[in-house]
Amino acid sequence: MSKRIAGPEIERLIQLLAKVPGLGPRSARRAALHLIKKKELLLAPLSAALAEALEKVRVCSVCGNVDTADPCTICTDPRREQATLIVVEDVADLWALERAGAMNVRYHVLGGTLSPLDGIGPDDLNIAGLVARVAEGGVAEIVLAVNATVEGQTTAHYIIDRLAGLEVKVTRLAHGVPVGGELDYLDEGTLAAALKSRTAF
Amino acid sequence: MSKRIAGPEIERLIQLLAKVPGLGPRSARRAALHLIKKKELLLAPLSAALAEALEKVRVCSVCGNVDTADPCTICTDPRREQATLIVVEDVADLWALERAGAMNVRYHVLGGTLSPLDGIGPDDLNIAGLVARVAEGGVAEIVLAVNATVEGQTTAHYIIDRLAGLEVKVTRLAHGVPVGGELDYLDEGTLAAALKSRTAF
Ligand SMILES: [Zn+2]
Ligand SMILES: [Zn+2]
Repeated sequence: MSKRIAGPEIERLIQLLAKVPGLGPRSARRAALHLIKKKELLLAPLSAALAEALEKVRVCSVCGNVDTADPCTICTDPRREQATLIVVEDVADLWALERAGAMNVRYHVLGGTLSPLDGIGPDDLNIAGLVARVAEGGVAEIVLAVNATVEGQTTAHYIIDRLAGLEVKVTRLAHGVPVGGELDYLDEGTLAAALKSRTAF
Repeated sequence: MSKRIAGPEIERLIQLLAKVPGLGPRSARRAALHLIKKKELLLAPLSAALAEALEKVRVCSVCGNVDTADPCTICTDPRREQATLIVVEDVADLWALERAGAMNVRYHVLGGTLSPLDGIGPDDLNIAGLVARVAEGGVAEIVLAVNATVEGQTTAHYIIDRLAGLEVKVTRLAHGVPVGGELDYLDEGTLAAALKSRTAF
């Protein structure tokens, strides 16, 4: 353990900042100091924004997106086409696809992929919710926008099996997504192109 | 401007996180999502820590350190040798030297370096405060631990001129600090060695 630098409040702030993805122990110190120096310009508004997120942000009970409204802004947007659902592993993928801006539709967030080695089975993902949404009717197409990884593809095939007997077209993203690549790291043009040339399973 | 992803609260959180050093726009989105997912484990304590820092952290009126106490924990620590002051440009340098743990003394934070091109003159730095601390008596040695940059060395020479006539030994860090290097990026062993072999100006 390193020597205590300042009061325990600052130490605790540094320790917590070090847990934020993208920051390590050293950059957490710099971040803490920067925040303290920019008290009015950055520390105060960030403190307020975190408190507000803590109080208001929740998981959408329809699609699994995170938002301050439940159902979320996307689910309740009347200008979105209702007949198509894009199925993603994670909210980060939903955000990436929204930034690509290629389709004005709704989503379904699985919350991960099937991974027997990690003990993640169908009941740990929001697959039953997806089947229920399709069974309710009104969904003509499901775009399985899962990552191009073994787990992603395994999950896609499992979902296709579960949807068997329901009247729905299942498509996937066009090849254009690099094999082994993660959606959230792709540029928006590639994502838009992959959505436009999506193919039938 | 990119398409709005979620509610304005999350957008605002992402925008503010992007201003934290070490995070950019893309990593700010990942950080926001991670915080929202780890609501109890990370978002809640970080929100509390920022609120506490905002309320309690202040600049020490004696040395310029940041702490929840004024005078700070270091200035009021009775186990620290009182006769030596280490002069640093920034609180980050003070923290780096404390981590090196080579000297159990007190500090004086200048708040920058002289930089005529940027319009930073002696009155913009806490140099008058340093001269006053030395003039009060009880300080036998000043270690000018400024960066090994042109601005740092110019500032050191200006401080030596201002201290002329006062009974104080002025030293600097040993060569060992790379030319053009910034203290805060050095490893602790190098800093400790440079402090131990400090030389007279
Ligand atoms: Zn939703
Ligand atoms: Zn102090």
